[in-house]
Amino acid sequence: MNAIDFFFKPRSVAVIGASRERGKIGNSVFENFTKGKFKGKVFAVNTKAEKVLGKKAYYSVKDIPSAVDLAVIAVPALAVKRVMVECSEKRVKACVIITSGFGEVGNKKLESEVMEIAKKAGIRVVGPNCLGIFDAYSNVDTLFLPEEKLGRPKRGSISFVSQSGAVGSVIIDWMSSKNYGVSKFISYGNAMDIDESDLLEYLLDDPLTKVICVYLEGVKDGRRFMNVAERVVKKKPIIVLKGGKTAAGSKAVSSHTGSLAGSDAVYEAAFRQTGVIRAKHLTEMFTFARALSEQPLPKGNRIAVVTNGGGFGVLAADETILKRLKFAKFSEKSKKILSKVVPSYGGINNPLDLVGDAGDDRYKKALDVFANDDNVDAVMCILLFQTAPITPRVVDHVIKFAKHAKKPIVVCSSGGLYTESMSKILEENGVPVFDTPSLAIDALDALVDYANIKSGREWTYD
Amino acid sequence: MNAIDFFFKPRSVAVIGASRERGKIGNSVFENFTKGKFKGKVFAVNTKAEKVLGKKAYYSVKDIPSAVDLAVIAVPALAVKRVMVECSEKRVKACVIITSGFGEVGNKKLESEVMEIAKKAGIRVVGPNCLGIFDAYSNVDTLFLPEEKLGRPKRGSISFVSQSGAVGSVIIDWMSSKNYGVSKFISYGNAMDIDESDLLEYLLDDPLTKVICVYLEGVKDGRRFMNVAERVVKKKPIIVLKGGKTAAGSKAVSSHTGSLAGSDAVYEAAFRQTGVIRAKHLTEMFTFARALSEQPLPKGNRIAVVTNGGGFGVLAADETILKRLKFAKFSEKSKKILSKVVPSYGGINNPLDLVGDAGDDRYKKALDVFANDDNVDAVMCILLFQTAPITPRVVDHVIKFAKHAKKPIVVCSSGGLYTESMSKILEENGVPVFDTPSLAIDALDALVDYANIKSGREWTYD
Repeated sequence: MNAIDFFFKPRSVAVIGASRERGKIGNSVFENFTKGKFKGKVFAVNTKAEKVLGKKAYYSVKDIPSAVDLAVIAVPALAVKRVMVECSEKRVKACVIITSGFGEVGNKKLESEVMEIAKKAGIRVVGPNCLGIFDAYSNVDTLFLPEEKLGRPKRGSISFVSQSGAVGSVIIDWMSSKNYGVSKFISYGNAMDIDESDLLEYLLDDPLTKVICVYLEGVKDGRRFMNVAERVVKKKPIIVLKGGKTAAGSKAVSSHTGSLAGSDAVYEAAFRQTGVIRAKHLTEMFTFARALSEQPLPKGNRIAVVTNGGGFGVLAADETILKRLKFAKFSEKSKKILSKVVPSYGGINNPLDLVGDAGDDRYKKALDVFANDDNVDAVMCILLFQTAPITPRVVDHVIKFAKHAKKPIVVCSSGGLYTESMSKILEENGVPVFDTPSLAIDALDALVDYANIKSGREWTYD
Repeated sequence: MNAIDFFFKPRSVAVIGASRERGKIGNSVFENFTKGKFKGKVFAVNTKAEKVLGKKAYYSVKDIPSAVDLAVIAVPALAVKRVMVECSEKRVKACVIITSGFGEVGNKKLESEVMEIAKKAGIRVVGPNCLGIFDAYSNVDTLFLPEEKLGRPKRGSISFVSQSGAVGSVIIDWMSSKNYGVSKFISYGNAMDIDESDLLEYLLDDPLTKVICVYLEGVKDGRRFMNVAERVVKKKPIIVLKGGKTAAGSKAVSSHTGSLAGSDAVYEAAFRQTGVIRAKHLTEMFTFARALSEQPLPKGNRIAVVTNGGGFGVLAADETILKRLKFAKFSEKSKKILSKVVPSYGGINNPLDLVGDAGDDRYKKALDVFANDDNVDAVMCILLFQTAPITPRVVDHVIKFAKHAKKPIVVCSSGGLYTESMSKILEENGVPVFDTPSLAIDALDALVDYANIKSGREWTYD
């Protein structure tokens, strides 16, 4: 067993500082493990109480009558040293130190003393000053934010590594409400021991992780990060959102985690060189993650855009040209078929405007053409559900394409309740839907970008 | 009465081509007027039926026994000329020609013949090839898309002018589901008579319109547009989304509306010179519209950012510096008060990190300081509702600031259901809430931008 496995698949967990008081961190964490679906053994450690949430509490982790794989530490900063000594005597394998008040507030001495104890005992540590771990498969859940305020996402293939607890928790909550599937989430805080590179290396070999998202403010060991990232992106994409890219942001970083944001130009170069995909903001990170986790990689960068609203086709065309994409030139055979699909005044263009009175059948035929035309590498399907002739059948045609065409497809669909109900069906079937042409094109661009990175190819961008 | 008033406040409406058949355009439009809340008289015109939706139908508009202010025309293209002759004999004041099949498909001759008739009779025309008009106050509603697919927004102060029916309809539907308040919506199609400049000029004096959004593919008379826009922006902001800004988009425009997109550099210069605010994409247009319709203009560009999550403060700082904004330097008095609000290790910075265990009271005190500090022109309040100490009371503090401080405030709040329920209360009270730091900063930037434009001032952007 990899040492880091103990964080995600512990057979037994001790919550040190498990509290009886609602709202306290040690209460929330202990409740997560006991009421939740976690299958291993769980023990409470509390120096003052005999019972916590109806379960026996131990005075020290050493008193627990069986082995402990993972200790979650939620005691005050000054008590952490003593607790770590006890953990080392108990031969605990891994610790999540949630407690804050270490390096991030200038208390670097305490942090290095705690690290010394862990090192000697061979205990791996996540934290301190972090939310810790959420694993949708094993149900390890050290997030101390109440479930009514912070939703837990369903199982999926996106893993997320965050230096900031706040950014991490918001993303988890958001992913849960948007029905994204998540594998592992790690808020690693001060990175006293385990840092972003260790986690990337671990996720490289995690079969349940297909896409890795990272929120980063600063990297401790740049060379190691580049080395690991380069190996990872050959197998799965890494999407990074970097906080502190400007002088003002960088100043905010130093008062936030105490780390050095460093020169953005250096990070930019490192990301480019290693093939890490950089997101400009949170929305872009979600967009990239959704596309890369759900759609196959394209064989080229020639896209087909189909629409039932001309204006949306125009906006899509504008966005396309600003990216790595180009418009597919349909084959003669395709043009012949399409000329019977599109009304005579429409014309066979790309974006292909099926015009406002298009029903499901025109979409079906256009998608069939795209599936069979070797000049088309990827498809953006604009579906404006507001028009009368469009019925829910069109959704079946798109899902059929997604299942059989072996080409990526993204949908752009915006509007109110009716549109949302249709989008939901598409997303449940693995077709990512975006509100605006801009985001849908971003998604295709990310797929092309990663296909390039993975294969080492480079397509012309004319 | 201004001639264009007849489109928005007609005393009587004739729907020419009112149909008995569900799903037909003439059926939807007639239903909108009869079942809806429109207060004027409504008449059906149908050459084949005696009754439509239970109401008497007239063979010709001329047979209607009272005056007709507005005719909505939904007959086939070839019948439009005859219908227009009848409208001119009836002395109709205004026509919305929904019918397509004119200039946009190369049928320019028919279009100019119809225009000739209208001109002679002094009839003003919106269309052809358009959705027409939605007025949330008078309940004029010629949108022929069924209400179960296309929501109608509530009354408010944003008006929207769209060259594309598809873009327009999606935006109306979206605004409705996001609870935006709308005044007037006009899809003007081929702009045979009334064009974007006429509509801007009309909305300039419309007391129910505070912000004007425009989706534009091409302008017919550039000089007139600039002249009108320049006058309008002195009184209210214009936000333009321009389709066809790239070569590919421009090609798509020509096959869409047949208009010339023109060189984007020319448009960019014209927008800058006249003070039109340009949105890069739909999301930006909404963001700008929401902020400008709900918040007061700032007196300067010095913002205060407050957060309970350090990482979000970092992201906000990064965004700020890329815009026209700068960070306020708090007064000595403010610093003294804040030093008692923020935990000792937090430090008095801007972004001001109230740290993760911040409760409502810290927010209340920080907002009070911002309200009273003359160095603060505008506020971005990051509220991460996932933490345990934050309760719904914090929402009251923000609303109080918005009502009394006479400074703009925007909120950044992301997450799932709990967060959404809090955001809804804020938005119902006129505080715009955005998902990401990036959008919230965009919103503040738009307020500063328009305050600059309106006053002719220019602030330093260091």
